[in-house]
Amino acid sequence: MEASGQGIDAALLDRFAAIVGEAHALRSDADIAPYVSERRGLYSGRTPLVLRPGSVDEISRIMRLATETRTPIVPQGGNTGLVGGQMPDGSGREIVLSLSRLNRIRELDVQSNTVTVEAGVVLQTLRDAADAADRLFPLSLGSQGSCQIGGNLSSNAGGTGVLAYGNARDLCLGVEVVLPTGEVFDDLRKLKKDNTGYDLKNLFVGAEGTLGIITAAVLKLYPKPKGRAVAWVGVESPEAALWLYGLVADHAGTDLTAFELVSERTLDFVLRHIPGSVAPLDGPFPWNVLVEVSSARSEEDARNLLEDALENAILGSGDDIAHINAVFASSLAQSDAFWRLRESMSDAQRLEGASIKHDISVPVAAIPEFIERAAIAVEAVSPGARLVCFGHMGDGNLHYNISQPVGADGAAFLGLYRAMNKAVHDIVRDLGGSFSAEHGIGRLKRDELLATAPPVAIDLMRRVKAAFDPAGIMNPGKII
Amino acid sequence: MEASGQGIDAALLDRFAAIVGEAHALRSDADIAPYVSERRGLYSGRTPLVLRPGSVDEISRIMRLATETRTPIVPQGGNTGLVGGQMPDGSGREIVLSLSRLNRIRELDVQSNTVTVEAGVVLQTLRDAADAADRLFPLSLGSQGSCQIGGNLSSNAGGTGVLAYGNARDLCLGVEVVLPTGEVFDDLRKLKKDNTGYDLKNLFVGAEGTLGIITAAVLKLYPKPKGRAVAWVGVESPEAALWLYGLVADHAGTDLTAFELVSERTLDFVLRHIPGSVAPLDGPFPWNVLVEVSSARSEEDARNLLEDALENAILGSGDDIAHINAVFASSLAQSDAFWRLRESMSDAQRLEGASIKHDISVPVAAIPEFIERAAIAVEAVSPGARLVCFGHMGDGNLHYNISQPVGADGAAFLGLYRAMNKAVHDIVRDLGGSFSAEHGIGRLKRDELLATAPPVAIDLMRRVKAAFDPAGIMNPGKII
Repeated sequence: MEASGQGIDAALLDRFAAIVGEAHALRSDADIAPYVSERRGLYSGRTPLVLRPGSVDEISRIMRLATETRTPIVPQGGNTGLVGGQMPDGSGREIVLSLSRLNRIRELDVQSNTVTVEAGVVLQTLRDAADAADRLFPLSLGSQGSCQIGGNLSSNAGGTGVLAYGNARDLCLGVEVVLPTGEVFDDLRKLKKDNTGYDLKNLFVGAEGTLGIITAAVLKLYPKPKGRAVAWVGVESPEAALWLYGLVADHAGTDLTAFELVSERTLDFVLRHIPGSVAPLDGPFPWNVLVEVSSARSEEDARNLLEDALENAILGSGDDIAHINAVFASSLAQSDAFWRLRESMSDAQRLEGASIKHDISVPVAAIPEFIERAAIAVEAVSPGARLVCFGHMGDGNLHYNISQPVGADGAAFLGLYRAMNKAVHDIVRDLGGSFSAEHGIGRLKRDELLATAPPVAIDLMRRVKAAFDPAGIMNPGKII
Repeated sequence: MEASGQGIDAALLDRFAAIVGEAHALRSDADIAPYVSERRGLYSGRTPLVLRPGSVDEISRIMRLATETRTPIVPQGGNTGLVGGQMPDGSGREIVLSLSRLNRIRELDVQSNTVTVEAGVVLQTLRDAADAADRLFPLSLGSQGSCQIGGNLSSNAGGTGVLAYGNARDLCLGVEVVLPTGEVFDDLRKLKKDNTGYDLKNLFVGAEGTLGIITAAVLKLYPKPKGRAVAWVGVESPEAALWLYGLVADHAGTDLTAFELVSERTLDFVLRHIPGSVAPLDGPFPWNVLVEVSSARSEEDARNLLEDALENAILGSGDDIAHINAVFASSLAQSDAFWRLRESMSDAQRLEGASIKHDISVPVAAIPEFIERAAIAVEAVSPGARLVCFGHMGDGNLHYNISQPVGADGAAFLGLYRAMNKAVHDIVRDLGGSFSAEHGIGRLKRDELLATAPPVAIDLMRRVKAAFDPAGIMNPGKII
């Protein structure tokens, strides 16, 4: 029995459904709809069947059947991905496999500082569980209320905690993976050191479900900081922000937990559109920085550390740093308010018309040059287009977004998508950067990856894909 | 022209030698000797030729010729590996390729906190260069005066800096690799975030030269701590050490930079055999801990932090923690003396006769159980054998070494090698641990890996090997 050219044979669908039970095999359009479109409406697909298995064994049996019948499987977590990696294609020949029911926290080990979780656990749920055990799980994203750990690992999620704690890959000690054949690769070890052969774990992390299905993972926990301090700093230029970053990093060391860069226009959009938002500083600055330090000792210690770091910086700013100003959050509420400004940027930008976005990284030292060169390139593609530049400066990662010129036609502006991408990404490549720092490849950037990555790298990736998924049934059309 | 069954055809050797020039193609026994044996005399091999290329291009040409003629190549760095991974076999059919002449630091970027180095740079040289730029390169090993970065990455080296900064893999942002075909995989990017496809880098890191030859890497640097404080603490049991670890980690957070466990006998051997060593505490304790904290702020801050952490611990130790004592290093000289005790343990043990060593890791919380169960197992294999247990407690990594019983026959004791390994490693496996935490697989542990790793994992590793090195010429007989 094989998947047919027109959708999938009904008898085969029944065989898949029987594995999970009819209650967990969704077939009606209404039931399927949430799995074949996403929040922004950018990606959609078709499928005759969404499977919601309740165990690793069921997933294993699904994959055995999929291999036997050459049926493509699209794993899906919280459906929050930004590049279409979780979406079936339009053929109706791919089955969606939702990990949502694998949502147990299997074990939280406070002495080893590890937590063993299933793929369907929602990130916020895990953060809360760690917090209740007086631990920190540092991965933090805008979508943490609905994204799931399996998706976080499959896309190697980043976010605001990366500066101090690393990305999803860095937080992962071990994985459990169901392979395309249905075999289970069980590497759920709570070990910080293990040099017994090739690093298979990191192949599955970031593979967007194209090599196998991550069903569980062992993740690192950290002692919960006892204090945090936040400041908002206005500076004149990206160069000044880079200089400030160096000083604060030197002074706070590993206690520096965020250093977010925000352009004047980005802040302006937030102040204009997000109710209740208040400008942190008197008067505008061309560039802003949100700095956060954390202390294992106390609130007071965090505050002192941040004040010392910024006072040193302000005292030390000579003629080259024309103008700098800082305001410290004097309460938890004010800290939250500063962070809310940062987190509202995408929402605010949406209200300024069409936008073309980039998720880029460059070496930290190259950020000022990137910003200078990219602004010229963007203006050449779309005169009057408005730069909305913000991001994780300490990681060299900017969300370099562009809003349409005021009064321009949104659709016409979006027609410049490829030209704009090329203009920005050419500069990124020239600076040794990445055109997908956090969000992955998925469907969105596959063509660009294939067109621009070194042929040797593409060839190695193809060899990995062929070695792990020779039948090509794991999330086809994503990455490679 | 092919490598013959008896060594390698002389004309083929000439072709290889011509690539690097005769001055860098070693053929005499005297010239070759340092490359075919190692310091401890445990591993040796034979080769007709040691190539010392001076550029990536020469390595690329060597590998093209090796692929064309099916000639096995054994890459070698500082020849300090402990599992024979750098050693040719005894056939005389393998050519040794030394990376020593690729020893340039290509770029040190203080703003991006990265350094781009060639494989042959000696670890201490890199540490010194970072220090001169007011940065820390935190990888620190006993062999750092002679081991090389290429070997450190190929073996995913650990050491004492792992607790706070991670192992060699964690410190690596990008690699340049010559593949078996001679193609160059250039991924030397200074990026903290890059989600553009499969993580190829981490396949080469830790692969012990079996997938390709790492010729250069981009590594992370850190702001140099401005203060360090060290204490030596005596406790009654591994449980007490684990309890202390939890308290200190909670109090010092990411400033905790070492937590080394040392058994009474281990310290005793050092005091007995290493000239100038002095017992840190009045009277012996069954277990000792060397604790180090670092501060980005000042020496005084580090001292205060450590004193607060340990005073809290000592005040808080109730009836369950019968006895605890701590002495703080009052000077840099005393800190160094404490660290010297820790670093002299292998040398001291050598003077107590034959020894059987294990490089194991378990979840941190399982260390007390491991120590309790392993002691019983060791006594059953060799009554009177003396445990010499020390290691990186915060990483769950112990060097669990066993010295022969007093007065026993050393050779007879070493005859128990396999039985002892099995007794210890069975417990390690039962606790979800690793039988090679730091040192890798090489020749030493290949049979055990193949015999004990899950068949699914072995199968995946074989697929990776076949995909990257189909001709099987890259460091044959190592890992897989």
